[in-house]
Amino acid sequence: MAMSMYAASVPVFQHMLRNLQHFLDKGEANAQARKFESAVLTTARLAPDMLPFTRQVLIACDAAKLCVARVSGVEAPKFEDNEQTFAELKARIQKTLDYLGSVPASALDGTEDKEITFPVGRDKTRTMTSQAYLTTWALPNFFFHVTTAYAILRHNGVDLGKSDYLAGAQR
Amino acid sequence: MAMSMYAASVPVFQHMLRNLQHFLDKGEANAQARKFESAVLTTARLAPDMLPFTRQVLIACDAAKLCVARVSGVEAPKFEDNEQTFAELKARIQKTLDYLGSVPASALDGTEDKEITFPVGRDKTRTMTSQAYLTTWALPNFFFHVTTAYAILRHNGVDLGKSDYLAGAQR
Repeated sequence: MAMSMYAASVPVFQHMLRNLQHFLDKGEANAQARKFESAVLTTARLAPDMLPFTRQVLIACDAAKLCVARVSGVEAPKFEDNEQTFAELKARIQKTLDYLGSVPASALDGTEDKEITFPVGRDKTRTMTSQAYLTTWALPNFFFHVTTAYAILRHNGVDLGKSDYLAGAQR
Repeated sequence: MAMSMYAASVPVFQHMLRNLQHFLDKGEANAQARKFESAVLTTARLAPDMLPFTRQVLIACDAAKLCVARVSGVEAPKFEDNEQTFAELKARIQKTLDYLGSVPASALDGTEDKEITFPVGRDKTRTMTSQAYLTTWALPNFFFHVTTAYAILRHNGVDLGKSDYLAGAQR
């Protein structure tokens, strides 16, 4: 398969969202094994002014969904952002995977030079070519939130390692 | 510019390594402003069995360098991994950027189906196509270490925000 806008986006998001589901499985199992409420992990933060675990997962999902929707033009479902438990977060990831799986490669391929305008913060927007948006904004943002979700669990003693991050349940 | 193996790799590594240099600048300035040894930050970890900040930076550099070397076949310089201070880490990033800048796009483009064999842990190797290696292994690994370096500083109160991560000194 040749490198393309599709190959550089959808399969990468799918791979890492499945790995993220695996982190959630391990987080949930770890809370049960250590006998504390799983909300201790889902509400945990790395710093007082960083977002909690739940938001890291939701933003990772939306970073993937919104990137693919903006680049492909295939409308994405809206979600209410009210997930709190591991089960709800896993369902949100699955809904995101369902959307990603519905977008044909043909809707992304060849879009390299399309202009993408997207919100940055509350009141501003930025415009980039689709390719620059994917490679220097959407992918870095997506990986930021997947890695931060991992780091929150890891900081709180969940038994995760690099192979969980890279290969998920196939490790 | 059309998406390609080069476009999906070298400019992404360059962009994020420059942002990483910017985190280091802010970390160093923050240690001076709060009047503690900068080694407090460079040796910090998110968990006792995670690698310290220095190693996160070195591995981010090597993830980029080794990916490009394996895919392109352009030999990369070896480094001694003895960096400890912010200044030494910034020099290491610069040496990595110098190598990346020396590799022509033509050495990466068209390599999608080339087989890449790389070490995984101490005694094992994996083999993937160049494209799968880049998108599902090397880029995730690179972003993991850049984000973890950011997270270590952020956890320790350095005044970084998402725009520092995404846009570096151009924020």
